[in-house]
Amino acid sequence: MLPSLDLPATLDTRTGTVLLRRADPADLDALMALLSDDPISASRGDVASSDDEPAYRAALEEILRDAGNDLLVVEGHAGELAATMQLTRIPGMARRGSTRLLVEAVRVRSDLRSAGIGGAMMRWVTEVAAPALGSSLVQLTSDAARVDAHRFYERLGFVGSHIGFKYRVRGA
Amino acid sequence: MLPSLDLPATLDTRTGTVLLRRADPADLDALMALLSDDPISASRGDVASSDDEPAYRAALEEILRDAGNDLLVVEGHAGELAATMQLTRIPGMARRGSTRLLVEAVRVRSDLRSAGIGGAMMRWVTEVAAPALGSSLVQLTSDAARVDAHRFYERLGFVGSHIGFKYRVRGA
Repeated sequence: MLPSLDLPATLDTRTGTVLLRRADPADLDALMALLSDDPISASRGDVASSDDEPAYRAALEEILRDAGNDLLVVEGHAGELAATMQLTRIPGMARRGSTRLLVEAVRVRSDLRSAGIGGAMMRWVTEVAAPALGSSLVQLTSDAARVDAHRFYERLGFVGSHIGFKYRVRGA
Repeated sequence: MLPSLDLPATLDTRTGTVLLRRADPADLDALMALLSDDPISASRGDVASSDDEPAYRAALEEILRDAGNDLLVVEGHAGELAATMQLTRIPGMARRGSTRLLVEAVRVRSDLRSAGIGGAMMRWVTEVAAPALGSSLVQLTSDAARVDAHRFYERLGFVGSHIGFKYRVRGA
């Protein structure tokens, strides 16, 4: 976990306020469902299979134990898990020794999209989390097929200046 | 530092072997020169100014102290610093709880490019470092203007499947 984050936090959305908090192991089933609620993620193997639960549980525990990573969730009005994202704080040499904040695995439950939850999460990242973590740059990559997501990030002030390359390790 | 990395390591290049090792504080001036030896980096403020030395020194010390990050350098035949890169190990939920290995700030000294140093570094990352760190995915972003770099990564088997978005935090 990233101890400098002031959590839980309240976020304003178009349908009222939601709660942003740190994930905990009791969220595991809902997190697996969220990760699979997206065709691109499902095509990469995130299908909420119970066979994969030990791997997701180990990953969640490792993220929460890691001083450079955190996994956050958004609770909707009825306490349901509406969204998730992972944050990684990365000290670096480039840009005069800048610390970066990497955002990964942003997912909003498909039936709750367009309520402004994702926008509220990303504004919290750029306006609250990044300064709290001493990060002058927030970065993320988005699959080239996610055209709507690109417009969403551009509206929030992100600049799509880079190509994101991935290499699948053989045998892994 | 990433303690599971088996360093130093010997890399084969087209002009002979070079040494890959962990950076140390004595490398600071050479690292600042390497980071500035590139027009895109220089345009972002990496100009090897002595005014910026405390910021680079603090960043280097933080990376070496961090259990999820490492900064590596390549020593050429005469002991000169020929290249650098940063590695970040990121546990994650997506892709069934996969751990990723992020590569940042890859720089090869401009007069030593085309000797195969960068290729040898990246092959070491995908074939040696990623398995040692339990990472099934290696990822990096490259400025859209670095067309030669894109061909280089594609030749090594990287797929440019994503858009890399950056957000410069106001006041930072």
